[in-house]
Amino acid sequence: MNLHNTVLTAPEPKTESSLRDRLFATRRLSRQLAAPLSDEDQVAQAMDDASPTKWHLAHTTWFFEAFLLKRFLPDYHVFDDRFEYCFNSYYESVGARQPRAKRGLLTRPSAQEVRDYRDFVDTALARLCDQTLSREAAKLIELGINHEQQHQELLLTDILSLFDAEPLKPAYREAGAGVGAGDAIPLSWVAFEGGIFEVGHDGNGFAYDNEGPRHEELIRPFKLADRCVTNAEWMAFIKDGGYSMPMLWLADGWNTVKGQDWTGPLYAEEAEGGTMQMSLLGFRPVDPAAPVTHVSYYEADAFARWAGYRLPSEFEWEVASASASVEGRTLGAGHLRPMPAKPGSGLKQMFGDVWEWTASAYLSYPGFKTAPGAVGEYNGKFMCSQFVLRGGSCATPEGHVRRTYRNFFYPHQRWQFTGLRLAQDA
Amino acid sequence: MNLHNTVLTAPEPKTESSLRDRLFATRRLSRQLAAPLSDEDQVAQAMDDASPTKWHLAHTTWFFEAFLLKRFLPDYHVFDDRFEYCFNSYYESVGARQPRAKRGLLTRPSAQEVRDYRDFVDTALARLCDQTLSREAAKLIELGINHEQQHQELLLTDILSLFDAEPLKPAYREAGAGVGAGDAIPLSWVAFEGGIFEVGHDGNGFAYDNEGPRHEELIRPFKLADRCVTNAEWMAFIKDGGYSMPMLWLADGWNTVKGQDWTGPLYAEEAEGGTMQMSLLGFRPVDPAAPVTHVSYYEADAFARWAGYRLPSEFEWEVASASASVEGRTLGAGHLRPMPAKPGSGLKQMFGDVWEWTASAYLSYPGFKTAPGAVGEYNGKFMCSQFVLRGGSCATPEGHVRRTYRNFFYPHQRWQFTGLRLAQDA
Amino acid sequence: MNLHNTVLTAPEPKTESSLRDRLFATRRLSRQLAAPLSDEDQVAQAMDDASPTKWHLAHTTWFFEAFLLKRFLPDYHVFDDRFEYCFNSYYESVGARQPRAKRGLLTRPSAQEVRDYRDFVDTALARLCDQTLSREAAKLIELGINHEQQHQELLLTDILSLFDAEPLKPAYREAGAGVGAGDAIPLSWVAFEGGIFEVGHDGNGFAYDNEGPRHEELIRPFKLADRCVTNAEWMAFIKDGGYSMPMLWLADGWNTVKGQDWTGPLYAEEAEGGTMQMSLLGFRPVDPAAPVTHVSYYEADAFARWAGYRLPSEFEWEVASASASVEGRTLGAGHLRPMPAKPGSGLKQMFGDVWEWTASAYLSYPGFKTAPGAVGEYNGKFMCSQFVLRGGSCATPEGHVRRTYRNFFYPHQRWQFTGLRLAQDA
Amino acid sequence: MNLHNTVLTAPEPKTESSLRDRLFATRRLSRQLAAPLSDEDQVAQAMDDASPTKWHLAHTTWFFEAFLLKRFLPDYHVFDDRFEYCFNSYYESVGARQPRAKRGLLTRPSAQEVRDYRDFVDTALARLCDQTLSREAAKLIELGINHEQQHQELLLTDILSLFDAEPLKPAYREAGAGVGAGDAIPLSWVAFEGGIFEVGHDGNGFAYDNEGPRHEELIRPFKLADRCVTNAEWMAFIKDGGYSMPMLWLADGWNTVKGQDWTGPLYAEEAEGGTMQMSLLGFRPVDPAAPVTHVSYYEADAFARWAGYRLPSEFEWEVASASASVEGRTLGAGHLRPMPAKPGSGLKQMFGDVWEWTASAYLSYPGFKTAPGAVGEYNGKFMCSQFVLRGGSCATPEGHVRRTYRNFFYPHQRWQFTGLRLAQDA
Repeated sequence: MNLHNTVLTAPEPKTESSLRDRLFATRRLSRQLAAPLSDEDQVAQAMDDASPTKWHLAHTTWFFEAFLLKRFLPDYHVFDDRFEYCFNSYYESVGARQPRAKRGLLTRPSAQEVRDYRDFVDTALARLCDQTLSREAAKLIELGINHEQQHQELLLTDILSLFDAEPLKPAYREAGAGVGAGDAIPLSWVAFEGGIFEVGHDGNGFAYDNEGPRHEELIRPFKLADRCVTNAEWMAFIKDGGYSMPMLWLADGWNTVKGQDWTGPLYAEEAEGGTMQMSLLGFRPVDPAAPVTHVSYYEADAFARWAGYRLPSEFEWEVASASASVEGRTLGAGHLRPMPAKPGSGLKQMFGDVWEWTASAYLSYPGFKTAPGAVGEYNGKFMCSQFVLRGGSCATPEGHVRRTYRNFFYPHQRWQFTGLRLAQDA
Repeated sequence: MNLHNTVLTAPEPKTESSLRDRLFATRRLSRQLAAPLSDEDQVAQAMDDASPTKWHLAHTTWFFEAFLLKRFLPDYHVFDDRFEYCFNSYYESVGARQPRAKRGLLTRPSAQEVRDYRDFVDTALARLCDQTLSREAAKLIELGINHEQQHQELLLTDILSLFDAEPLKPAYREAGAGVGAGDAIPLSWVAFEGGIFEVGHDGNGFAYDNEGPRHEELIRPFKLADRCVTNAEWMAFIKDGGYSMPMLWLADGWNTVKGQDWTGPLYAEEAEGGTMQMSLLGFRPVDPAAPVTHVSYYEADAFARWAGYRLPSEFEWEVASASASVEGRTLGAGHLRPMPAKPGSGLKQMFGDVWEWTASAYLSYPGFKTAPGAVGEYNGKFMCSQFVLRGGSCATPEGHVRRTYRNFFYPHQRWQFTGLRLAQDA
Repeated sequence: MNLHNTVLTAPEPKTESSLRDRLFATRRLSRQLAAPLSDEDQVAQAMDDASPTKWHLAHTTWFFEAFLLKRFLPDYHVFDDRFEYCFNSYYESVGARQPRAKRGLLTRPSAQEVRDYRDFVDTALARLCDQTLSREAAKLIELGINHEQQHQELLLTDILSLFDAEPLKPAYREAGAGVGAGDAIPLSWVAFEGGIFEVGHDGNGFAYDNEGPRHEELIRPFKLADRCVTNAEWMAFIKDGGYSMPMLWLADGWNTVKGQDWTGPLYAEEAEGGTMQMSLLGFRPVDPAAPVTHVSYYEADAFARWAGYRLPSEFEWEVASASASVEGRTLGAGHLRPMPAKPGSGLKQMFGDVWEWTASAYLSYPGFKTAPGAVGEYNGKFMCSQFVLRGGSCATPEGHVRRTYRNFFYPHQRWQFTGLRLAQDA
Repeated sequence: MNLHNTVLTAPEPKTESSLRDRLFATRRLSRQLAAPLSDEDQVAQAMDDASPTKWHLAHTTWFFEAFLLKRFLPDYHVFDDRFEYCFNSYYESVGARQPRAKRGLLTRPSAQEVRDYRDFVDTALARLCDQTLSREAAKLIELGINHEQQHQELLLTDILSLFDAEPLKPAYREAGAGVGAGDAIPLSWVAFEGGIFEVGHDGNGFAYDNEGPRHEELIRPFKLADRCVTNAEWMAFIKDGGYSMPMLWLADGWNTVKGQDWTGPLYAEEAEGGTMQMSLLGFRPVDPAAPVTHVSYYEADAFARWAGYRLPSEFEWEVASASASVEGRTLGAGHLRPMPAKPGSGLKQMFGDVWEWTASAYLSYPGFKTAPGAVGEYNGKFMCSQFVLRGGSCATPEGHVRRTYRNFFYPHQRWQFTGLRLAQDA
């Protein structure tokens, strides 16, 4: 199967495609992403942060069942009432659930039963879509699509964490030709004016609750690097002793570097002939011109300090992004890894390739209110001790990311496709 | 598939069956034991002590490849040289290996590849058996058979640990009719004379190195209960507050009871209508007349103190066993759970049903010498902090157990089919 | 000794007292704070976050020796060159040091040797002050004074953590008359206009680097409670099930509540006759009208959500503080515990009593640069995963706190005198 | 104070000294042993296994109060009823107690209060001794003496663990002249006949319950090394790669070596000029001719395997000890460290110098019954997962050790003065 050309083309974001079409295109994509994996691959869990493929397939299905079908489809009966315990993620208001660290023990229900579950729920969703949808049902379908897209990205990053932990180091997709090794384009700076700017989502189209309310932010003049930090630049940081100079690091970061013996990005190893890194295409040489990825906030922050710059705030990033197209090398591009920036003026790689760490803590916007009910647990309760990332990655489904999109992870986490872009005061 | 009647009949122990026949009967049995399990079931690992089914199937195969075929079959080429890392268990002299706690991450090689590996090695073993076997090769085949039988028992206890950890509580085999609930036979005592006795294996037939050298032991007159402690007796212990009286317990045991919140045997839960316990036949009511199982040494010791008796030493057990047939309800009986003792005089349940904790620390016999090479790591290096168990269980393959057989586990472990038999001074 | 009236009067903040006078008043106060404690009390450490009294006394002394005397006092010889290892806190650029969790093992040097060390360094400081001080030396003296004041507060909170961990529950100071139990004044709201405001320190007088640069912030209209949340209000939260409703909590907070079995503030216990709490005055009934203290950010945030309000941002707090006097019941007031708000209009308890959690993550201000050298490690490297607290507490030395002062702790920490004040959008 | 000559002379074991004299001599010795330590030194605890000096002083006093005075001295009132919580060690039947790992937090009661407590209890003990003692009271006094002697040895090993953990590495006693560096005497073997031997205590004089009942053991002919393994021999083991050859080690031992990065005995470090080791005389060069000390059972076992020999069983040791005087360099000899064996025929160093690991698990003797009541918790409940050591050490009080004495520790523990003597089959 040629994933590159056929499979990963998710629903087009900006087209007139109906909600129903986008719903089923999304549902199909999840199955397509799981297709290269055996049933065995789909059950295992390499670490607490990651979930098994099968769990992602079932959880996204349960999400539609629990929050949509049970409420809006008359006479709907759940496929198996024990699945709520198995596949609820973190909704305290729904009830008890399989502990996160033990999702890899769910050999039952089987992968085939989960596929049957998906079929069953898809049939019910089709029945629901045949009806006139209430505004609330339509909103929940939209949320369910976006929710499933998030899990599509996690499915890929989580299977990578599993495959890296396996001694045979399997590839999710065998790579075709050799990975490029061209030079990166030189870094340029793009300057932005200061002032009071409106940030946050304006309410046109779907957005998560954490992207609003739209509000004003005061921003000082700044400059943003026109591309992401590359592997070549990161190797210079390593060679200069970056991982052994405490003065470059946040205290928590330094404790992590020492406690975890970090000497480079996650999945990377020094080998004869250069740096190798595990990827969805297997264990292969890193491309010096491509963005560094699988680095934590701690590392991104230390690198910026070493380089004499800083990370942008999330609002600087958002304001700057107005000058860039939302197009980018996301999942639909089919690379499954971040690619080098192409020559040209202006900001590059703002969308796709790697999520970009910002210097902003993940907190609520002024006036933010949590939605009532279980859906209110979606984002708000994580607003503590995490940092905002912007822009999407090579594993983000088409049309999922926005200028106002706020992704968030803890500062030590690095199994996502996380990288960075430098900033400085103007 | 009717496991009860067909599958579990392992090689007859006492027959004239050739080494070759017993080898392939053993190899087939492993596959039969895995047959009720999906490929998904075979990959997961519920706890560090337990291993995945697939790992057991591959490790026992690797054992023949590494210690037999590579040395004795000219021109043998290993199936895949990466498997040594994956499937070496604990042989330091062989080299590095997948960490024990991460055996559940081995989704590759696949279950099918492991089956192919077994076929490949079986073909080579057949070729080897076509030749005139050297004495050493024959001994290693015998060791490999016994090694694989041990892993057959572990395969069953380990899949039970997995299925217990799953919310759907699947049964390894669906039970037919209802579980019996008859009364246990009353406990009687069988008296034995003291004196100097020869214990340990006499060298006729196979035995592990830890069963020898045969030597003399001084034994005082003692009495042994004619059957194992039952679930009904254990429930009386619980009801009397056995798990909340520190004076009954060893200090390490009491710390474990408090630290782990133990209130009964492993896998057992109090429910309406009585005690339920997870088993290979699913989650079902315990049979009051059957031997209690899944108890630790700590619990066995505390129970004996509560009852006013003690555990037997391993030598008392061995000497007493001379009066009992080695026949018993082991794996071939097909019950997959310990069964009530039948009426009659003399010692009952000495073999099969449950492994019986003894009061003897697992240490070397006088004059014991470790064998040279990797095979010498088989038993000797575990002679520390463990206790000896005797007699085999409902999951022990036919013909595997002997009067001199020494099983051993740490005093806190209880995922095996472990129970106890009381003793007292005469 | 009557600590209340004599001892705790630290250097007056706003007076014309010379730097030298303030230096030695600060040095004396540390000794006075340690005076009620035996040498034994001064060596022990109840938890990793807290340090022994003796360590505080020595570390603050080492700070002057390492950063001031060695550079600015010609011919100065260190008291004992092994003390740097013992009493360096976290200055990576200075070198290796006693692990934080093992500060309680330093029975040597003895308390008397540490007192001698203080005398030795004080003599040298006096010699230095006799000279014409360079601007940099004067700045380091000012920093050393403020540094020692921070440790004076920690000395008190850390000895409280020790005394709480002791079965005899000793009091740091015996209380005189019974603790008051009057009613709290009713809560009122004070409204503030929105706009662009200058925040951060203006450079007049001492401030930490993290208080600047002074810069503009955009603030929306808001209201601030005129007093802190009281124990009576907190007990209503508990009674309403606040600690068992996951929907009120941040996810990290809820995990902490469950994992640590939190059911109320630190040091508090339900007893017959009401809530008791360990304090510097011993284990005594809480005063319902006094501010709740020893609560974490998680708890403060959950309480605010339960109450239908929110925590203020650090800039709202700072802007609002312009209407309040910097006077407050800090250490000099001699209460050693937070006191009820007094009737009257306007904001009360802004300074002293309890540190107030804000909703602001502890991050750098725009344009912040770390100072070069070891002193640069003072604040900047902690700008990650912590929250800002404002206003000082009953244990903050006189003159130490400012409107722009930013204290910071992790969201789970609660051994400081931490409380909260509610806010809402206007 | 010249500890060497005056202080450490404890009650003579074999003299006619009255029970009363021995009681008060023992009580005085504890105070003398604490005399070189400051109050600060006496409060700290370096690890869970070790206790503070003050705790030992108080616990041994509480033992007399709880088990003797409260029962046998009419009108006795306890000194402070809160001390039972503070100073109960592990008597579950007595009640709750300060957690073992937090004994170092007991800054209250103060060292002076503990000394007052000792005086108070000593006065009461004197009053009790003025009366006619019941047989049971006399037995409890004897037990209390022996109990306190055990804690005297622990006091010394525990203060060593603290001083080793301190950066200033203080000496408990300053050493006089340089440590000897003569050659060890060559190792000789002493042969013993096999047969049936009576072992265990015969009831004449005091013994712990775990030394009986006296019973017969069957012993095979064996040889015992005439002296302990020396530091020089241990250094040869290290040099030969002993700590990096897994085949020499028990599996649990090897895991400990790797997990704890063991490369030599506890407290030892390679330095320029040779091996240094922390001792009660400070951090000093090891004496090659002296017995190796601070080694675990794991290490002793691995060394014996490396050397081609084995450890003796506890019964071999006991039978052989009949040919040696119970005299030895115990605490009264005043060396405070193990000393080289002196030339001469026959077994040397059997008593004193170092405790000798045996190959025997610490289990009950045939017919052993736990005493009723709290005193029954003294020994029996530890009969699990530990190994027996024989012979006493340089820190064992005079007259405390016997041929039948069974000390016991876990196989990983090494903060006691533990060493080894080799054995082999005849």
